Amino acid sequence: MLLLHKALVLGLRQTYRLKSTPSRLCIQACSANDSFQPQSPRLTSGGNSSTGGWRAMGTLLGLGAVLAYHDHRCRAAQESPRIYTKEEVRSHKSPQTGIWVTLGSDVFDVTEFVDLHPGGPSKLMLAAGGPLEPFWALYAVHSQPHVRELLAQYKIGELDPEDNVAPTLETSDPYAEDPVRHPALKVNSQRPFNAEPPPELLTENYITPNSIFFTRNHLPVPNLDPETYRLHIVGAPGGHSLSLSLDDLRKFPKHEVTVTLQCAGNRRSEMTQVKEVKGLEWRTGAISTARWAGARLCDVLAQAGHQLCETEAHVCFEGLDSDPTGTAYGASIPLARALDPEAEVLLAYEMNGQPLPRDHGFPVRVVVPGVVGARHVKWLGRVSVETEESHSHWQRRDYKGFSPSVDWDTVDFDSAPSIQELPVQSAITEPQDGQTIESGEVTVKGYAWSGGGRAVIRVDVSLDGGLTWQAAELDGEEQRPRKAWAWRLWQLQVPVPTGQKELNIVCKAVDDSYNVQPDTVAPIWNLRGVLSNAWHRVHVRVIP
Amino acid sequence: MLLLHKALVLGLRQTYRLKSTPSRLCIQACSANDSFQPQSPRLTSGGNSSTGGWRAMGTLLGLGAVLAYHDHRCRAAQESPRIYTKEEVRSHKSPQTGIWVTLGSDVFDVTEFVDLHPGGPSKLMLAAGGPLEPFWALYAVHSQPHVRELLAQYKIGELDPEDNVAPTLETSDPYAEDPVRHPALKVNSQRPFNAEPPPELLTENYITPNSIFFTRNHLPVPNLDPETYRLHIVGAPGGHSLSLSLDDLRKFPKHEVTVTLQCAGNRRSEMTQVKEVKGLEWRTGAISTARWAGARLCDVLAQAGHQLCETEAHVCFEGLDSDPTGTAYGASIPLARALDPEAEVLLAYEMNGQPLPRDHGFPVRVVVPGVVGARHVKWLGRVSVETEESHSHWQRRDYKGFSPSVDWDTVDFDSAPSIQELPVQSAITEPQDGQTIESGEVTVKGYAWSGGGRAVIRVDVSLDGGLTWQAAELDGEEQRPRKAWAWRLWQLQVPVPTGQKELNIVCKAVDDSYNVQPDTVAPIWNLRGVLSNAWHRVHVRVIP
Repeated sequence: MLLLHKALVLGLRQTYRLKSTPSRLCIQACSANDSFQPQSPRLTSGGNSSTGGWRAMGTLLGLGAVLAYHDHRCRAAQESPRIYTKEEVRSHKSPQTGIWVTLGSDVFDVTEFVDLHPGGPSKLMLAAGGPLEPFWALYAVHSQPHVRELLAQYKIGELDPEDNVAPTLETSDPYAEDPVRHPALKVNSQRPFNAEPPPELLTENYITPNSIFFTRNHLPVPNLDPETYRLHIVGAPGGHSLSLSLDDLRKFPKHEVTVTLQCAGNRRSEMTQVKEVKGLEWRTGAISTARWAGARLCDVLAQAGHQLCETEAHVCFEGLDSDPTGTAYGASIPLARALDPEAEVLLAYEMNGQPLPRDHGFPVRVVVPGVVGARHVKWLGRVSVETEESHSHWQRRDYKGFSPSVDWDTVDFDSAPSIQELPVQSAITEPQDGQTIESGEVTVKGYAWSGGGRAVIRVDVSLDGGLTWQAAELDGEEQRPRKAWAWRLWQLQVPVPTGQKELNIVCKAVDDSYNVQPDTVAPIWNLRGVLSNAWHRVHVRVIP
Repeated sequence: MLLLHKALVLGLRQTYRLKSTPSRLCIQACSANDSFQPQSPRLTSGGNSSTGGWRAMGTLLGLGAVLAYHDHRCRAAQESPRIYTKEEVRSHKSPQTGIWVTLGSDVFDVTEFVDLHPGGPSKLMLAAGGPLEPFWALYAVHSQPHVRELLAQYKIGELDPEDNVAPTLETSDPYAEDPVRHPALKVNSQRPFNAEPPPELLTENYITPNSIFFTRNHLPVPNLDPETYRLHIVGAPGGHSLSLSLDDLRKFPKHEVTVTLQCAGNRRSEMTQVKEVKGLEWRTGAISTARWAGARLCDVLAQAGHQLCETEAHVCFEGLDSDPTGTAYGASIPLARALDPEAEVLLAYEMNGQPLPRDHGFPVRVVVPGVVGARHVKWLGRVSVETEESHSHWQRRDYKGFSPSVDWDTVDFDSAPSIQELPVQSAITEPQDGQTIESGEVTVKGYAWSGGGRAVIRVDVSLDGGLTWQAAELDGEEQRPRKAWAWRLWQLQVPVPTGQKELNIVCKAVDDSYNVQPDTVAPIWNLRGVLSNAWHRVHVRVIP
């Protein structure tokens, strides 16, 4: 019986793979808002749609397996439902306790199914102890009758309908109005909220779904009313200032562009292993890609009378997020970049075809292709052109790189330029460090990106710590010359050398200026732990 | 007597240092033509100008030293001159044979003086066995009476006036008409001529004197008549083609810009140490900096009716140098760069205020700031705009980077983009690998540059092979934002750690996109040995 069941799932796994390939390149559906509100689909155990699913599976897998499966399912459905609290479900998220998940009000014990999950055990484990809906929203493949039928056999009961107490709102907490976030996000700081998608989700889609796009907030999320929102553009001398509503901004020509954002602190955790740094412990996920739409900053600045100066000037942005003293987040970019139509700097009001989620700057944020995330100011309130860079802490006293010899006693922040374009970067997302893989063949996956519109032209992968290399296959959208604003995903399927008990997998990328990543972390270590772009290394054990 | 002599020279060395500091930043005089023709200044042993020199030195050094020196000089002058051939002089260029040099027709044995040379022994050794004039032309400090007087004491005779036979001209040799070159150049290939300045001269001046600017020829140097020279610009459809004389080109607005050129093969010799590559053994000197002047390519293309296309296009250049089959050197750059006035691409007819030397493209070459030397086509004959890159061998089958795993059996030249912008680079020019230094303090000097107009923002230097680092002082011209076309020179004066018997000196640069150099050579090794930009390392011994 178990063997037949396994055959069924393997068959399903094939369907899944076939279907998942095209879906990788298209934008995944994601909720219009950032707070994920679980819907409550009831399992249809039987009925017409179900019968259609059965037929398809019968064709695919052969009648024997289907009949055996059907038998299994019917027995599961006959058991009378028990009632569980959410707390009880949450306490079941490991092989030791059993692995439970919910869909709508139904509770499932999927302990036995985890290893058979067509998308791999690690992805199902992300949902352990909680609802499946936020994850199914990421993977369209689940919205098929046969998937629900497969799940039905693991039903062990239902959620307590009384167990729906809203969390107490502490009004004195400046973060009390922060939005609800996707449970898959790995939280590095709750207040302000900073979180990254887990590696195995990060490169599952070329376009990162809004709900798991990495979030780097410096302050509480402001709760802005789109009706009364105004963006203030300070006019040029002799020009005139603008106060733009969201509708006013929409009247400018709408410009769309796919851009990868990366936090300067991405992969900081690797620097911490060399020596302590100040900053959040980002792993490889402080990077994501979206399709942004909005008005071009150059068009808006032109309407306010701004044009290129002979002398260097800067466009300063101020957010509507602020600390208790009223200090707002701020940053600036050179005016030359802001006014260059080819640089495609946006005042964005859409992210992947939806209004910006609150965590990503609703209603308007700056998007500066090729430039460090810190300059993409969210909840944008004010834009001005100045002779100097923004005086914000984050422009002048943060987000700068220093020699490894500089410490907090000797640092002179004025001696280094603020980070704008980022250096070439890549990381491995599969397999993960410490993982055990099977002998035979391994698929190594990851992402690669470079700042300033420089395209990634090659990713080299090594299984032996960097002694020998093989070029990976580049996936994802081919980028335009000089405007390679978005990452390339990559993978390499490669035989595991026979007899090898462990692999030291390494990746390094090359951009079209032939810049490469440095070999090791220590020589680029810096006190803020930014610009961590050494070769990415993962160590895995091989099951003989 | 020897002690007094040493005191005198140390005094002179101080004068020299004081005088050499400002001269570093100004363009050194260099002959209008590339072939250096030694002039014949006679030594004035006595006379008024000499007396003036004596007075100055008396003030500087104290009368005792001067009188002792004067005595020495008079004895040397009393000896009767002997006659030597050039061949005899050439055979004296090591401490073992004695070190001879000539100035005009006078021959000097400077064996004892070498270690006392105010500019350092290694610079005088560059002239060993030959004439001083080409080197004195680089160092204005030598054209003072007291320097000539100092030299006079080492006179041992005169050159044979009969020994002036012109070299036989082999007319069948396509290289027979190549120009005479500066003797300081380290020749990597005579035919075609490829040579680099020695490290200790390379960073002596911010602007490289024309006569020692690195030379990378692919073919014999054409001998072009500036009167009949015409540059053919193929017109756009609907526009008209141009046939420009040198005077026509001079009628376009003259644009000047300081640009560093680097060969893709610079530092190839370090790659060869990892594994054999195909290519000339460039050390650290395939890079130089000049002030170029000419017409902007964008102005010339506009006159021929060219404008930016929606689709990617390329500007193809053809040289007037060609191989026996008539195939000319050729290369191309993207049209977007060529038409961007901010990219400052030149059709240059001046180099450091002089007509281009023949080795550097007389009468007209392309200068593409921020881009690999191979695209700066010399002896320019033809410019056209095409939908594809140049079909030249050097664009499509050379000057590309590959993974270390790619060899001549597996290489697919179409799989890699042609090199345009170069990655961040730096090298140590002083001290040199294998040199012995004194304990106390060491001055480490070098250059740093990055492609694409990215400015060098920091150079880190290590004395312990990369374990600890110190930031060097950046010299040379501050670069404009996004248009950092020229290098920075740098130096670091640092105490030699006591008790240290050897130092592993390392440098690495950071550009304003925070790209860094890779730690080691092997992982960037490629079959053509291009893009060699790992940390530069020199090993020196310390005299206790």
